[in-house]
Amino acid sequence: MELGVGGSNPPCCTKKMAKDKKTKPSKELPLGFVDRKEKELLIRDFVISNIKEVMIKYGFQYLETPSFEYTDSIGKFLPDKDRPDQGVFSFKDERIWLSLRYDLTAPLARYVAKNYLELAKPFKRYQLGTVWRNEKPGPGRFREFLQFDADYVGTKNLQSDAELCVLISEILEKCGLDKKDYTVKISSRKFTDKLFEQLKVKSKEQISTTLRALDKIDRLGWEEAKKLLGEGREDKSGDYTKGANLNKEQIKVIENALNNKTSESEDVLEIIEIFKGYNFKNYKFDPSVIRGLEYYTGPIFEVNLNFEVKNSKGKAIQFGSIGGGGRYDNLVSNFGNFDCPATGISIGLDRLVFALMQKKDFKINSIRPVMICVFDKNKIYDYIKILKSLRASNISSEIYPGEGKLKKQMEYANKIGSPAVILYGDNEIKSGKATLKNLKSGKEISATIESLSDEIKKII
Amino acid sequence: MELGVGGSNPPCCTKKMAKDKKTKPSKELPLGFVDRKEKELLIRDFVISNIKEVMIKYGFQYLETPSFEYTDSIGKFLPDKDRPDQGVFSFKDERIWLSLRYDLTAPLARYVAKNYLELAKPFKRYQLGTVWRNEKPGPGRFREFLQFDADYVGTKNLQSDAELCVLISEILEKCGLDKKDYTVKISSRKFTDKLFEQLKVKSKEQISTTLRALDKIDRLGWEEAKKLLGEGREDKSGDYTKGANLNKEQIKVIENALNNKTSESEDVLEIIEIFKGYNFKNYKFDPSVIRGLEYYTGPIFEVNLNFEVKNSKGKAIQFGSIGGGGRYDNLVSNFGNFDCPATGISIGLDRLVFALMQKKDFKINSIRPVMICVFDKNKIYDYIKILKSLRASNISSEIYPGEGKLKKQMEYANKIGSPAVILYGDNEIKSGKATLKNLKSGKEISATIESLSDEIKKII
Repeated sequence: MELGVGGSNPPCCTKKMAKDKKTKPSKELPLGFVDRKEKELLIRDFVISNIKEVMIKYGFQYLETPSFEYTDSIGKFLPDKDRPDQGVFSFKDERIWLSLRYDLTAPLARYVAKNYLELAKPFKRYQLGTVWRNEKPGPGRFREFLQFDADYVGTKNLQSDAELCVLISEILEKCGLDKKDYTVKISSRKFTDKLFEQLKVKSKEQISTTLRALDKIDRLGWEEAKKLLGEGREDKSGDYTKGANLNKEQIKVIENALNNKTSESEDVLEIIEIFKGYNFKNYKFDPSVIRGLEYYTGPIFEVNLNFEVKNSKGKAIQFGSIGGGGRYDNLVSNFGNFDCPATGISIGLDRLVFALMQKKDFKINSIRPVMICVFDKNKIYDYIKILKSLRASNISSEIYPGEGKLKKQMEYANKIGSPAVILYGDNEIKSGKATLKNLKSGKEISATIESLSDEIKKII
Repeated sequence: MELGVGGSNPPCCTKKMAKDKKTKPSKELPLGFVDRKEKELLIRDFVISNIKEVMIKYGFQYLETPSFEYTDSIGKFLPDKDRPDQGVFSFKDERIWLSLRYDLTAPLARYVAKNYLELAKPFKRYQLGTVWRNEKPGPGRFREFLQFDADYVGTKNLQSDAELCVLISEILEKCGLDKKDYTVKISSRKFTDKLFEQLKVKSKEQISTTLRALDKIDRLGWEEAKKLLGEGREDKSGDYTKGANLNKEQIKVIENALNNKTSESEDVLEIIEIFKGYNFKNYKFDPSVIRGLEYYTGPIFEVNLNFEVKNSKGKAIQFGSIGGGGRYDNLVSNFGNFDCPATGISIGLDRLVFALMQKKDFKINSIRPVMICVFDKNKIYDYIKILKSLRASNISSEIYPGEGKLKKQMEYANKIGSPAVILYGDNEIKSGKATLKNLKSGKEISATIESLSDEIKKII
């Protein structure tokens, strides 16, 4: 995925900055970070308001944990171990390490452990929050993103897992997607557990390297992922990643298992039974769904979009999933003697918004202000009088906020996309009527200050 | 200010954690960070939606910059230099330092410099975002908070400065404050510039230490702040802060200037003239307003609440300001040869929400779900049928998500604050009517599945 500014910064920027250090600070952003503009933010707000409505309807509680946790508390469950010390942003504070959260699940486990006695169980909570991954930056690989999470903590009941898939689907459809636009893929860690038994692979390191390799099939394709199952793989940049060191027969066993579309495990079958009650059909059992994070223990989900998404250069891209999750029955018990099974799902909101912007015309338009021109600074009270009457009618409006003459003012109004300007010069003041100029049609009308709001509402 | 969990963590936690490291990870949060629960978040959402409405009405554009910037780009404008290297959270990334933003203004300056040619000027933008300050943690001193900023970039026009005060006031009143509840205090850096001329103080270091000392008068009182103007001050914890080394006569000159309530500078007088057009009276000229950040160059503002606020222990506290800002005409020009004067204002949203929670009953109640009891897991389709009909009527509802028997289910429903539970056991299934039990009154009624939604709407 190659989305925006962050990804398209040439790597030379960083070097250039270092050189220019003594002259001027850099105007660029570090790789993997982006500025987001109004259109994207308004669509994101629309998605978030849909999420909140669905969360209330489904009976979840709203929670927010902070960005930082003790490094120790959130553990090391990241899939990308290419840079083992840098998967998270960490910071030494009075001899203790703090880290920025890399997901919202590990902090939830910490929160539940901390408040175990006072929480009703199951505890159903949702959270919206930024997470950070200090991964190798590259085109479209962001190091900061906004996530939505919904979790059921303190229950083994697979109805929870089923409902997570149903609620994600309700959120997506509320955001304007059709059923054909997305699929919830389901598998289970029980499936891979069985596979490792078959492969006679027991080393924790080898298991997690294998899982990470399988998780990359979607992005790299089977042939490249195969290298990561074997000795290792060199990527386009020349970086080499050590593989899981499986032999050819073992890799063949994996290939066969992935192609067997009916090898559902028991937990997946039970979830599919529950789906029938909801009349939920938009799922697919897919054993190639792995999910990178290590803490999953049971059913896992992945939400995929089925329509074409283009990158910033207009090229259709393999978009991958916009979210996923699964059951993590042992995460809370890391903190103490809690028997606290749990399951959850996440959406990557920036990714979803990026895709939605291409899918549908949301009719979310930026509202741009009507501008009142300034002829004479000493007449400011007249302009404020007009402004107050427009704003009292809830019309987005402003007095020209700069210092230029009329020509510059009109250029400004056009540039910001003002629907109209109001002219109230000497002639207008004499007649008691302002001139309202529609900037789309160019048409001008004369109107009393009291009637301006109504006239503007006709044209915006 | 002592607000919550973060502040009340005993410092021993950190030590304890280090010792327990090999057993279990800490369940605690690092000092200066907090978990936030539903009530606070709902009020915050209410404040944010008011902010967005006002911003649209005033013609501002919505922008979001990332959490990280090159350390170099955001400079060092923090007031608290007690730990000069740690005022920000910084990370070394491929030999270049990145920092988490400590405000939204420095990143805005970077954004404007980066996009200078394509932006309409003046550029009016607002942003909502978390900022981080790696200050010495302590009771109520948070290291992460949510800020709202509105700025006019590219104009010297003091109408902008005036309008910032007016719009903050509109936001506060939309949130339920009365005029008597808050005051916008105004002063100008021109006032302190004149003061330093009088004092014959020219050293940059001495000026900034003096400004920081003055900024602390509100929190420490004049007598303690005086020590920071002189040799230095030891705080309660025994930490010593070096002072500005002013002599007694100089300190007397400052004291007199602060007490002179009519020594407005020209820029402040002009802003007050513009206020008259808006009929805005809720301001006060106050030369003791300093604002800690170093980049201000002209008028400065501070928004103070006038009602009593209590800390988490019920003790009335000196709450201080909930926001402020001012003119910073030279910040963008740090990045190149831009002539780009600017002015802006911020609100600390967590502080405002904390105060609002005490001021007014917002009638923002958490909506808790109606719970459908589970008698027999094999009847799950019957429960889902009821659930679907309630959710189709937009009623917050859930099937009991745990695995307990009926008694445990009722305990759960009571603990989460369910308004009602639905019982649909063998007898009910036979009769085709469910039992709806109101958990507040204890009253039970019998209703067909189709009529349940209407019955529930009567009691929630």
